[in-house]
Amino acid sequence: MNERLEKQKEFMLEIDKAKNIFRQTHLSGHGRRENDAEHSWHMALMAFLLMEHANEEVDILRVIKMILIHDLVEIDAGDTYAYDVEGNQTKRAREEAAADRIFSILPEDQEHELRKLWEEFEENETPEALYAHVMDNFQPMALNDSNGGGDWKKRGIKKSQVLKRNQKTADGSKAIWEYMELMINKNVEDGNLILDEE
Amino acid sequence: MNERLEKQKEFMLEIDKAKNIFRQTHLSGHGRRENDAEHSWHMALMAFLLMEHANEEVDILRVIKMILIHDLVEIDAGDTYAYDVEGNQTKRAREEAAADRIFSILPEDQEHELRKLWEEFEENETPEALYAHVMDNFQPMALNDSNGGGDWKKRGIKKSQVLKRNQKTADGSKAIWEYMELMINKNVEDGNLILDEE
Repeated sequence: MNERLEKQKEFMLEIDKAKNIFRQTHLSGHGRRENDAEHSWHMALMAFLLMEHANEEVDILRVIKMILIHDLVEIDAGDTYAYDVEGNQTKRAREEAAADRIFSILPEDQEHELRKLWEEFEENETPEALYAHVMDNFQPMALNDSNGGGDWKKRGIKKSQVLKRNQKTADGSKAIWEYMELMINKNVEDGNLILDEE
Repeated sequence: MNERLEKQKEFMLEIDKAKNIFRQTHLSGHGRRENDAEHSWHMALMAFLLMEHANEEVDILRVIKMILIHDLVEIDAGDTYAYDVEGNQTKRAREEAAADRIFSILPEDQEHELRKLWEEFEENETPEALYAHVMDNFQPMALNDSNGGGDWKKRGIKKSQVLKRNQKTADGSKAIWEYMELMINKNVEDGNLILDEE
């Protein structure tokens, strides 16, 4: 019996649960809510197609790995909506405990590799992490925009909240952020997003 | 307006539909059927964790790109079950027409890149394609095995069919194939897979 493969297979079955963690974003065409596995696939695929728009040259393999694993902690910690103030206060502690448990299913070297990738994503300082976050923000915004901003409208989200969430997006990609600003302003004009402060 | 980004965003919204293409495989824990986006995410993540088991050194970035896009053609062509004889006769033509339409949404250089990656996957000759196919076979088999072989049992699948489908799996990874053989034989013993010929 191949011991490493046995652990890796156990991990493979564990992360299958990400397919049942549902986000607040709805699929395009006014579809159902999106789950973490689909969201990560969509981000990873777009990451290599959009890499020409990153401000700095990025190690795209590391970006993709980071994206593929970035939401695994939600298997235990659940999805915390970007604009949920209370939830975001306890998010870090819940997610760290989740990372401890879930990554430790793997052989030790891979546990460390994934933990490091996840920390890098969370710290959001390297060009790779900044660019991965651009995907994490652009992908749901594009879906939401295609649905007439329904995800914002339903919750009465304000423009200032969206700008705050995206305060580092231009650090990852000026070009994509400019494009997103057009989307945001169009949704304000259409009354899908509340204009408060600039 | 950024023209390339506009086309890329249009493609991003088009491929969102892969989240509604459902496969025959069920999620672990006797869950619902799995969709193409989730399947591709799961394969891509496992591809980098399992690369030590590939027979030859592979360009893992190319493997992952191939995996992320390999099922996009099913947006038009639908999922053809591995053991559907009739469906598999028309599969190639349906999928080529789909590739023509879907990839052409992208800027031309990226249309060609994705077409080439998809053809490489389909031809299944390079170490990268062979290893990507190992993932395409191992991932659903592990889910199915965790569900007591339910996907095989329901359709009366025979061991010879599984072996035929996996005739090149050992060319991509001997180690994973040995592990899969144990799974197959256990499912034969448990009566989930019909023993016909060896």
